[in-house]
Amino acid sequence: MDQEQLRNLLDQVKSGTVEIDAAMERMRHLPFEDLGFAKLDHHRALRHGMPEVIFGLGKTPEQVGELATHLLEQARNILITRADPDMAKLVCELVPDAEYFPLSGAIRVWRDRTLTGKGTIAVISAGTSDIPVAQEAQVTAEVMGNRVDSIFDIGVAGIHRLMSNRERITEARVVVVCAGMEGALPSVVGGLVSAPVIAVPTSVGYGASFHGLAALLGMLNSCASNVTVVNIDNGFGAAYVASLINRL
Amino acid sequence: MDQEQLRNLLDQVKSGTVEIDAAMERMRHLPFEDLGFAKLDHHRALRHGMPEVIFGLGKTPEQVGELATHLLEQARNILITRADPDMAKLVCELVPDAEYFPLSGAIRVWRDRTLTGKGTIAVISAGTSDIPVAQEAQVTAEVMGNRVDSIFDIGVAGIHRLMSNRERITEARVVVVCAGMEGALPSVVGGLVSAPVIAVPTSVGYGASFHGLAALLGMLNSCASNVTVVNIDNGFGAAYVASLINRL
Amino acid sequence: MDQEQLRNLLDQVKSGTVEIDAAMERMRHLPFEDLGFAKLDHHRALRHGMPEVIFGLGKTPEQVGELATHLLEQARNILITRADPDMAKLVCELVPDAEYFPLSGAIRVWRDRTLTGKGTIAVISAGTSDIPVAQEAQVTAEVMGNRVDSIFDIGVAGIHRLMSNRERITEARVVVVCAGMEGALPSVVGGLVSAPVIAVPTSVGYGASFHGLAALLGMLNSCASNVTVVNIDNGFGAAYVASLINRL
Amino acid sequence: MDQEQLRNLLDQVKSGTVEIDAAMERMRHLPFEDLGFAKLDHHRALRHGMPEVIFGLGKTPEQVGELATHLLEQARNILITRADPDMAKLVCELVPDAEYFPLSGAIRVWRDRTLTGKGTIAVISAGTSDIPVAQEAQVTAEVMGNRVDSIFDIGVAGIHRLMSNRERITEARVVVVCAGMEGALPSVVGGLVSAPVIAVPTSVGYGASFHGLAALLGMLNSCASNVTVVNIDNGFGAAYVASLINRL
Amino acid sequence: MDQEQLRNLLDQVKSGTVEIDAAMERMRHLPFEDLGFAKLDHHRALRHGMPEVIFGLGKTPEQVGELATHLLEQARNILITRADPDMAKLVCELVPDAEYFPLSGAIRVWRDRTLTGKGTIAVISAGTSDIPVAQEAQVTAEVMGNRVDSIFDIGVAGIHRLMSNRERITEARVVVVCAGMEGALPSVVGGLVSAPVIAVPTSVGYGASFHGLAALLGMLNSCASNVTVVNIDNGFGAAYVASLINRL
Amino acid sequence: MDQEQLRNLLDQVKSGTVEIDAAMERMRHLPFEDLGFAKLDHHRALRHGMPEVIFGLGKTPEQVGELATHLLEQARNILITRADPDMAKLVCELVPDAEYFPLSGAIRVWRDRTLTGKGTIAVISAGTSDIPVAQEAQVTAEVMGNRVDSIFDIGVAGIHRLMSNRERITEARVVVVCAGMEGALPSVVGGLVSAPVIAVPTSVGYGASFHGLAALLGMLNSCASNVTVVNIDNGFGAAYVASLINRL
Amino acid sequence: MDQEQLRNLLDQVKSGTVEIDAAMERMRHLPFEDLGFAKLDHHRALRHGMPEVIFGLGKTPEQVGELATHLLEQARNILITRADPDMAKLVCELVPDAEYFPLSGAIRVWRDRTLTGKGTIAVISAGTSDIPVAQEAQVTAEVMGNRVDSIFDIGVAGIHRLMSNRERITEARVVVVCAGMEGALPSVVGGLVSAPVIAVPTSVGYGASFHGLAALLGMLNSCASNVTVVNIDNGFGAAYVASLINRL
Amino acid sequence: MDQEQLRNLLDQVKSGTVEIDAAMERMRHLPFEDLGFAKLDHHRALRHGMPEVIFGLGKTPEQVGELATHLLEQARNILITRADPDMAKLVCELVPDAEYFPLSGAIRVWRDRTLTGKGTIAVISAGTSDIPVAQEAQVTAEVMGNRVDSIFDIGVAGIHRLMSNRERITEARVVVVCAGMEGALPSVVGGLVSAPVIAVPTSVGYGASFHGLAALLGMLNSCASNVTVVNIDNGFGAAYVASLINRL
Repeated sequence: MDQEQLRNLLDQVKSGTVEIDAAMERMRHLPFEDLGFAKLDHHRALRHGMPEVIFGLGKTPEQVGELATHLLEQARNILITRADPDMAKLVCELVPDAEYFPLSGAIRVWRDRTLTGKGTIAVISAGTSDIPVAQEAQVTAEVMGNRVDSIFDIGVAGIHRLMSNRERITEARVVVVCAGMEGALPSVVGGLVSAPVIAVPTSVGYGASFHGLAALLGMLNSCASNVTVVNIDNGFGAAYVASLINRL
Repeated sequence: MDQEQLRNLLDQVKSGTVEIDAAMERMRHLPFEDLGFAKLDHHRALRHGMPEVIFGLGKTPEQVGELATHLLEQARNILITRADPDMAKLVCELVPDAEYFPLSGAIRVWRDRTLTGKGTIAVISAGTSDIPVAQEAQVTAEVMGNRVDSIFDIGVAGIHRLMSNRERITEARVVVVCAGMEGALPSVVGGLVSAPVIAVPTSVGYGASFHGLAALLGMLNSCASNVTVVNIDNGFGAAYVASLINRL
Repeated sequence: MDQEQLRNLLDQVKSGTVEIDAAMERMRHLPFEDLGFAKLDHHRALRHGMPEVIFGLGKTPEQVGELATHLLEQARNILITRADPDMAKLVCELVPDAEYFPLSGAIRVWRDRTLTGKGTIAVISAGTSDIPVAQEAQVTAEVMGNRVDSIFDIGVAGIHRLMSNRERITEARVVVVCAGMEGALPSVVGGLVSAPVIAVPTSVGYGASFHGLAALLGMLNSCASNVTVVNIDNGFGAAYVASLINRL
Repeated sequence: MDQEQLRNLLDQVKSGTVEIDAAMERMRHLPFEDLGFAKLDHHRALRHGMPEVIFGLGKTPEQVGELATHLLEQARNILITRADPDMAKLVCELVPDAEYFPLSGAIRVWRDRTLTGKGTIAVISAGTSDIPVAQEAQVTAEVMGNRVDSIFDIGVAGIHRLMSNRERITEARVVVVCAGMEGALPSVVGGLVSAPVIAVPTSVGYGASFHGLAALLGMLNSCASNVTVVNIDNGFGAAYVASLINRL
Repeated sequence: MDQEQLRNLLDQVKSGTVEIDAAMERMRHLPFEDLGFAKLDHHRALRHGMPEVIFGLGKTPEQVGELATHLLEQARNILITRADPDMAKLVCELVPDAEYFPLSGAIRVWRDRTLTGKGTIAVISAGTSDIPVAQEAQVTAEVMGNRVDSIFDIGVAGIHRLMSNRERITEARVVVVCAGMEGALPSVVGGLVSAPVIAVPTSVGYGASFHGLAALLGMLNSCASNVTVVNIDNGFGAAYVASLINRL
Repeated sequence: MDQEQLRNLLDQVKSGTVEIDAAMERMRHLPFEDLGFAKLDHHRALRHGMPEVIFGLGKTPEQVGELATHLLEQARNILITRADPDMAKLVCELVPDAEYFPLSGAIRVWRDRTLTGKGTIAVISAGTSDIPVAQEAQVTAEVMGNRVDSIFDIGVAGIHRLMSNRERITEARVVVVCAGMEGALPSVVGGLVSAPVIAVPTSVGYGASFHGLAALLGMLNSCASNVTVVNIDNGFGAAYVASLINRL
Repeated sequence: MDQEQLRNLLDQVKSGTVEIDAAMERMRHLPFEDLGFAKLDHHRALRHGMPEVIFGLGKTPEQVGELATHLLEQARNILITRADPDMAKLVCELVPDAEYFPLSGAIRVWRDRTLTGKGTIAVISAGTSDIPVAQEAQVTAEVMGNRVDSIFDIGVAGIHRLMSNRERITEARVVVVCAGMEGALPSVVGGLVSAPVIAVPTSVGYGASFHGLAALLGMLNSCASNVTVVNIDNGFGAAYVASLINRL
Repeated sequence: MDQEQLRNLLDQVKSGTVEIDAAMERMRHLPFEDLGFAKLDHHRALRHGMPEVIFGLGKTPEQVGELATHLLEQARNILITRADPDMAKLVCELVPDAEYFPLSGAIRVWRDRTLTGKGTIAVISAGTSDIPVAQEAQVTAEVMGNRVDSIFDIGVAGIHRLMSNRERITEARVVVVCAGMEGALPSVVGGLVSAPVIAVPTSVGYGASFHGLAALLGMLNSCASNVTVVNIDNGFGAAYVASLINRL
C-alpha cells in the first residue's frame, strides 16, 4: 500500500538509511493518488448519503445485476438509471426490496431514508409526455435524501394550472423543471420563484423539435436569470445538482 | 395590348378571315396573362386598401425615393420597410407627410385611414429589445386599415405583467406576438386567448440564441394549437397576414 | 371549494367577524384560479364546438380507449391523432361510430356535424406522399365544423395542374398547404390567392430534405406575404388555426 | 389604485351596499396583479440585497445614464452589464462612485457591501481570453453580496495549475467555471469538488468553436454530475444563480 | 373535352350566336390547361423515349404492381426506383420481362432500346459502398436511351486507378460521379475532363459524414467549375439530367 | 525541358548508350506531366474559346491588374469575378475596352465574340435582389460565346409573370435559374421545360434563410427531375456548366 | 503486361523499327500506372507489415469470408473491422486462428507478430462505454506491429485516476485517446505528455452529444497543441496513423 | 520555495523534530506541483528547442511587445501568431531581428536554427487563397527546427500539378495539407504517400463552405487512412504536431 510506502520511506529518512536527496527523488515517483486520495475521500465524505449510481444503458442484465449486488455490500442505497424490463426483472429477483419505475427505467434500492436535504425539491413537468424524465428526477432526488414535491402536467399554454400551483412551487428550496417542445416552462417558473431553477429539456416533440434541441436552446436563452440547464432528458443530473444545493 | 389581340382574333373568326383551326393554333401562343390577368386583378381588388410596399434593404436612397413618388401617383398609402436614416431623410423631403419610425426603419405614407379590419389586432412584444420588430408590425397593421393595440414588454418571466393585460389581449380578433431569446411568449398568450396567434421570432439575444433560431424553433414547437409562425424579425409579414384575417 | 372559501370570507366581512384588512390579507393567498377560472371558461366557450383532442403517440391502446370513452360522456366530437392500428381497433370496438383513417392515423367521432366555419377551407397537398399530413388536416378541419375542399397532388413542377384548380383554391376562405421536399407550393398558392395560407412542411423526402427541414426553411422564407407556417407534419395544428380563422 | 378598489368593495360588502354575489362577480374583473403583486413583492423581498440590473447592449449612453440615476434613487447597488466606454464615461460622470470594468464592460455602483452569501463563490476561468466573461461573473457575484475567489487562467492542458489550486476551489460553496474552446474545465473541476458547478461556455476560439457552440455542447455533456450550464458568455447569469444558491 | 369546348365557342362566335365580348368573358373561365396543354405535350414530346417512372418508396407492392401494368399499356419502358424485394417479386410475376437490380432497388422494363443519347454517359463511383447509387444512375441512363460506361471503385485515395481510366472518362459526353465520405471524386474528375460533371453525394460513411452531408457540402464547394450537384443518393436524378444533356 | 529529356533518353537507348532496363528505371522518375501534358492540353483545346478567369475576391487591385494584362498577352477574352470598384478602376485604366458590371462585380474583356454555343442560355432570376448573381451568370455566359436571354424578376409568388415568359424560357437550350429566399423558382421552371436547369441559390433573404441555406436545400430537393444545383451565389459556375452543355 | 509493352517499345527504338518521335507519341498513350505503379508499390513497401484490412459493415458474411480467405493466400495478417457475430462465426470456421472481439466487432488474423513500431502506443479511453472504440484501436495497433498499453476508464471527472497513470502515458511514443460525451480527455492528456495525441471522438452519450458531434467539436478546439483528430468512432484510423508514426 | 519546504520537512523528520505521522499529514497539504513539477519540467525538456508562442489575436500591440521582450530574455526563438500590422510594427522596433509575415500574420524571432527534426515536413496548399494558413504552418515548422518543403497551389482539380510534385511529397517524413472549399486534397495526398498526413481545413470559400465546415467534414471523412485533422485555419497546430512527429 502506498501510504505504507511513504511511511517506510520516511522511516528510512529518519534512520538515515536513505539520504534526503534520494528520498525526494523517490517521492517524485510515488503515485499521485497516494497523497491526494485522502483529500478526495474527504470530498466523497461531503457527498455522504449519496447512493451509488449505475447507468444501465448499454449494459447487460447480468452486468447490472452483478454490479448492484456488489455495491450493496457496502452501500445502503443504489440507483440504476435507464434500465430496461429485463434488467429490472433480474435485479428485483436478486434484490427483493428493489423498486422498478417503468416509465423512466429507474430501479431504486432505498434502505437509508434519512433526509439530508434541508428543504423541498419541486419537480415540475410541462406535459404528460415529459413525465418519464420528471420521474427519473423525482426518484433520484428522493433516494438522495430529499423531500420531493412532484407537480406534473402544468404546461405554459394552460397558465392557470401553473398559477394555481404557485404556492407549492414557491415553497420549494430548489426547483427542477422538465419540458419538451418549446421548453418555455422554466422561464415562467423562474419568474415566479426566487429559488434556483434547474431546467431539463426533454426530447418530447416531433419535427422541428429536433429531438429536444428546440427545448434546449429555449432554456439556454431563458429571460429568467435564475435558470441553469442540463443535457436533454437528463433528469438524473438535474436532481443530483438539486440535491447538492438542498444540502447547503 | 393583349386583350386587343384577342378581340382582333375573334373579329377575324367572326368575319371568316381566320379559320377556327388557325385561330385555335394562334390562341395557344397568346401570352398567358391575357386570360388570367383579370382574375389576378380581381384578387388584387380583394386586397383593396392594402398599401404599396417597398423593401428598403439593399436599395439606394435615390431608388427608394423614386419608387415612393412613382407609387404615390396611384396609391394613397405606401409602406417602406427596413429603411435607413438616409432613405428616411430623402423620402421625407420628397413626401412631406411621410412618417419615419427609426426603431424599425419603417417609413409610412398614410393618407387613406379607412378601417378595413373588423376588429382589433393586438401586437405584443416580450422585451424592450423586441420593440423594433413589434413596431414594424404595428405600423404595417395600421396602414393596412386596422385598429392596433400595442402591448410591449410583457415577457414570460414576469407573468403578472402579462396577466394584468389579459383583458386587452382577449379582446383582440388576431394577435401578433414578437419575442426573441427563448420565444416562449406566443405559447403563453396562445393558451390565454382563442384568437389566432401569429408568432414572430426576433433575432434578439446572444450566444445560443443563434440569431433568432432558438426563438424560431420554440415557436414552431408551441404547445398552444392556435399559433403559426413567420420568419425571424418579419414583423411586416405577421401584420400582413393578421390584416387579411381581420378583414374576414 | 375555492368559490366557497371566498363566499365564506365575504360572509365574515359582512358580519364583521373578519376585519377588512385581514380579509384583504387572506385574499392574497387564495389560489389564482378561483378568480380567473371563469374568464378562462369564457374563452373555452368561444371555442365551442371544438372537439376534444387526444394525441395518440406514446400512449397505449388502453389509455387511449379509456380517455376516449371518458371524454365522450361530455363531448359529442372527439379526435385522436397519430393513432396506430391497435389503438384504432380498440377504439372502434368501444365506440362503434368511430372512423379510422389509416394513412394519417386519425380516429374521429363526429356526432355533431354543425358547420361553425363561415366558408370553405381548402386543404392542398403537393405530392401523393404528403397526403397523410393533408388527411390529418382535412379530418381535423371537418370535425371542427368546416366545409373542406381537398385538392391533392398538385406539385409545383406540374404547374398546369395547380392552375387548373385555381378557381377552387381562390374560393376558399383559408388555405392549408402541405408540401415536403422543397416546400415551394405555399409560395405559389400564396401568390394566387388573397386568403391566409397556412403552410405545413412535411417530412417527405430523403437526403438533403433532412426530415422536413428543407421544406420548413423554404416556407419560412416564402416570398408570398400571406403565408404562415406550423411545425413539420403538423396537419392538425394547421387545421386548428384555419378553423379559428374560418369562424371569424 | 387597485388596493383601494378592493377595500372600497369590501366596505360596501360590510355595509350591505353590495351583495356578496355581485361582489364576487366584480372581483373576477379586478386586475390580476392587485392580488398577486404583494406575493411577488414578497418574492422580491427574498431577493433582498440583489442590485438593480441594466443590460447595456443596444441602449444609448443617455438611456443608460438616465436609468442608472433613476434606479439609484431607491437602490443602493446597481449593475450595468455589456456597457461600452461611452456609457461608462457618462455614467461615471453622473455617478462618481461607479466603477467601470473595461474587459467585461460592467459598471458597478456598490454602496451596500453587506455579505448575504454564506460562503465563498469561486470564479474560475480557463484561459486569459475567458477573463472578460469571468470578470462579469466576479463583479456580479460581489455586488450581490458574496465573497468571491477568482482563479483565472487554469486550463485543462496545464492540469498542474488546476491541481495546485485545488484547496481554494474545494473551499468554495458554489463554483462558476468559464471556458471557451473545448469547454472541458467544468468537467475536471466538477470531478474535484462536491459543490454545485455552474458552467459558462465562452465564445472564445475560432473555426470549429462556432462562436462557443463547441464549449456549450461539451459542458452539456459533462461526465461530472454536479455541472449545470448557462448561455454562451453569460457570466452574469451564472453569478446570479450562484448568488441565489450561496444564500441558501 | 376542353379542346372541343373552345372549338364550339369559336363556332358560336363565327355564327354570331355568341358576342365577342361574351366569348372573351367565357374564355377567361376555361381551364388553364386547355390552352397550355398542347404546349406541355409538345414538351413531353421533346422528352420522347423517356420511360415512365415510379418512385417505389412508401408504396405497397400492390400499388406498384397496378401502376406498372397500367403504365405499360401505353409506355414501352418503365423504371421503378427504390423498390424492395416484395415489390420486385410481384412486378416480375406481373411483367415477366422486368429486371430487378437488388443493390439499388431498381426495377426496369426495357422494351424500346433505341439510343436517343448522342454519346456515352460515364457513371463513376468512388467506393464499393457507393455502387447502389451508381447502379441506380446506370440503370436509369440506359433505359433513357444512352450508352453507359460504368467505372466503379476508383476513389481519390488511389489516384492511379482513376488515372488509368482517364481515357474512358474523357471519351464520355457527360459524366455522373457518385461518392460518399468526403465526396472528393467529382473535383478530381472535373479537373480531368471538359464534359459536364453531375455529382451525386451518397450517404455512405459514418460519424461526421452526417448521412451524406459532408459529401454534399464538398461537392457544392468543388474547385472544378464544371460540376453541378443533385440530392444525396439521387442517382436517378443525375442520370435523368445527364440523359437530357446527352440528347442535345 | 522534359520532352527534351525523354528524347535524349530514347536517343541513348537507340545508340545503345543506355540499357533498356536502365532506361525504364529512369523513365519512372520523369515528371508525370511530361507524358500527360499533351492530353491535358487536348482537353483545354476542347474548352477553346473559354476566357481566362480571375477570382477577384481577396486579391489587391494591383495583383488583379497585373494578372489581367499578363493574360491578355495570350487570351482575347478575360473575365474577372467578385471585383470591387478599386479593381475595376485600375483594370479599366490598364485595359480600356474592359467593361465593369458593378452589381455583380464582374469585369469583362470581350474581344472574341464568336458564338460557340449552339442555342440560347436563359438566365432567370426570381427577385430584383437576385440580379447581381444573375448578372454574373449572364456576363459569364456571354463571354463564353453564348446567346443569353435574361429574364429577371419573375418570382413564384407572381406566377403569371413566369407564365407569360414561358415561350422564351422553353426556347432556351439550357436554363440557369437564380433564386434566394425559398428558392422555389427552379422547380416551377423545371416543370415547364425539358431543358437542363441549373439552379443557383442566392444568399438573398434574412432570418431563417441562413445566408442562402434555405434556398440551397430547397433546390437540392426539387421535385423537378431536370434540376442540378451549384453553390450559393455561384452565378459563374452555373454559366460555366451551361456553356459546356450549350456547346454539345 | 504494361511493363512488357514498354520494354517492347524500347526494343523497337533500339533496333530502329520505331522512330523516336513515334515512340514518344505512343508512350503518351501508355496507361499511367505502368510507370507510376512501381513507385506506388515502393510506397506500399514502406507500409510493409501492415495487415490487409476489410471494412465489414454492409457486407454479407459470405463476402467477408471469401475476401478473408483470398487475402490470406498472400498476407499473413488481416484485420476485419465492424463485423457482426454472423461474420465472426463464418470467418472463425474458415480461419481457425482468427480472433473475434465482440465489443468492437473486430476480427483479427495475427500470424506475423514482428514488432515494427519503435515504441509503445498508449490507447486510452474515458469511460467504459468508449471501450468498443478503444478496443478497435488496440486490436488494430497490435496487428500493425506495435506494443500497446491500454488504459481504460480514466475520465476527466475523476482526474486522480488519470494522474495515477501518468507514468504509463508519458512513456508512450504516440497516444490514442477515445472519449465521448464532452470529449475533454485528449486536452488533459495532451497537456501531460509531449508525444503526439490522436483523439477519437466516440458516439457515446445522448441528447446534446448529437451522436458524437459534441466530442468531435471539443477535440478540434483542444487547447493542447499536440492533438489531432479523426472521425467519430474511428478507432481503426487513429491506430493506423499511430502505427505510421511509431515506425518513424 | 516548495522544494525547499519539502527538504526542510525531511530534515525535521530526520532530526526527529517532526513525527512521521505529522510529516505525512503535512505532505498532503503541500501544493501539487512541488512533487510533480520536476516531471513536468522533464516533459518540457523533451520539447527542448520549441519556441515560446504568443497568440496575438485579441491582445494589444503593447501587450504583445512586452510579452515578446520578456520571453526573449530566456528564449532564443519566439513565434507570434495572428498578429496585425500594428503589432508587427512595434515588435520589429523592439526586436530588430524579428521577421513579419503579413499574409499569415506571423512574427518570428529565429535565433537558434538548429535542426531538431529528422526529416523534411512538406507543407502543401490547395489554392492561392489557402497560402496564409500554409504560411503559418511553414513559419511554425521552421522555427521549431524542421526543414520545410512548401508546395503551394496544387489543387485536386488540376491533378497533374499534384502528380508532378509527387517526388517531393513522398520524400517528406510528415505532410501538412491545407485546403479550403471541398477540402479534398488531403485524401489525394494521403493516397500517394505512406507518411502521416495532417489536414488543415481553411475557411476559404463562400456560400455552402460555411466558413470551413465543408472542408472540415470532408477531411474527417477522408477515405485515406493516414489522415488526421486539426481545427479550421489552425496552421500552427498542424505544424506543431508535425514537429513532434518529425523529432521521433
